[in-house]
Amino acid sequence: MTDSPLGNRLLQDAVEQLSSLPGIGKKSALRFALYLLKQPMENVERFGNSIISLRREIKYCTECNMISDSNMCPICADARRDRRTICVVESLRDVLSIEATGEYRGVYHVLGGVISPMDGVGPADLPIDQLCRRVQDNQIEEVILALSTGMEGETTSFYLYKVLTPLNVKITAIARGVAFGDDLEYTDQLTLGRSIVNRQIFSPEI
Amino acid sequence: MTDSPLGNRLLQDAVEQLSSLPGIGKKSALRFALYLLKQPMENVERFGNSIISLRREIKYCTECNMISDSNMCPICADARRDRRTICVVESLRDVLSIEATGEYRGVYHVLGGVISPMDGVGPADLPIDQLCRRVQDNQIEEVILALSTGMEGETTSFYLYKVLTPLNVKITAIARGVAFGDDLEYTDQLTLGRSIVNRQIFSPEI
Repeated sequence: MTDSPLGNRLLQDAVEQLSSLPGIGKKSALRFALYLLKQPMENVERFGNSIISLRREIKYCTECNMISDSNMCPICADARRDRRTICVVESLRDVLSIEATGEYRGVYHVLGGVISPMDGVGPADLPIDQLCRRVQDNQIEEVILALSTGMEGETTSFYLYKVLTPLNVKITAIARGVAFGDDLEYTDQLTLGRSIVNRQIFSPEI
Repeated sequence: MTDSPLGNRLLQDAVEQLSSLPGIGKKSALRFALYLLKQPMENVERFGNSIISLRREIKYCTECNMISDSNMCPICADARRDRRTICVVESLRDVLSIEATGEYRGVYHVLGGVISPMDGVGPADLPIDQLCRRVQDNQIEEVILALSTGMEGETTSFYLYKVLTPLNVKITAIARGVAFGDDLEYTDQLTLGRSIVNRQIFSPEI
């Protein structure tokens, strides 16, 4: 399918923009554009402006770098959270996932990426100095590393381990193992191997 | 996953708007929003404004109702097209699909929908009168019905057949049959049955 026979500048612009979204091709983008064309004018203005406002007005928490309406995010501002424990994550999505478990009461530090020489992202491009300062200034007791297990995530975790170690803080990492419900035969060797090495005393939940 | 713990108004607004796109859930919408947050401000403004401009500035071809930059779409304006043949389709996407085949040199009539009592769309809500006038005023020789084969498409085709018949125009419909590359065993009975009834003299392409 091609949109060139129509030569419609407005449609082509919109399709091109919509297809810049991650995972969205020209076909889906065209579907979105035609859908938006059928909506009332005020809805489409709200749509476009909500995105522009998001980008223009968003703030980042000065403590943890989480995106926020104000200078302090609701988690950092919440007096009931344990401020002695910082969980280091790559993105807001990871925060949401961990929050959804209801198992964590500490605060976060959002890196916004991982060290990736391929993409030109070095340690200086991430708020790692800020993390170190935070650990020193606030008598942090534990830093939990919750980065992804790919090459880049591992590199970043190792770098963090190196710079945090002199600061006399407990450094932990989230447990890796066979997920609940997963069959052993379909679990990759690395995960299964680690899950045996790191086996724990069996304590059935009652 | 929930975005409530963050209580971020800007993000929630944008996610809500993005998840209004067809086929997009909250999770994809959040991914889009976080992607847009990482883009330069001017790119995001271009993104939002291209959508608003599309909706605000789009015109519809006064001949065939196709969306257009001007009052006459490039197809209707193209002197090389056969103006005696009109292909009736539901949407612009169908036009693009047919244009991509390179097999059609006539013009189109875009209904923008089909008769659907369930959705409150009656014949009067579609540009059917306009089609009839177009057929009468321009000595149209053939109207090709190329609507979908669902209940609503069939109803619409039948309605068009009824109103076009008195106008003394040849009314045809696109051929239905087993698609190239499809296995007979996986073809639905209706299609396979019709393909036998409507069998054609075999003429191998050389």
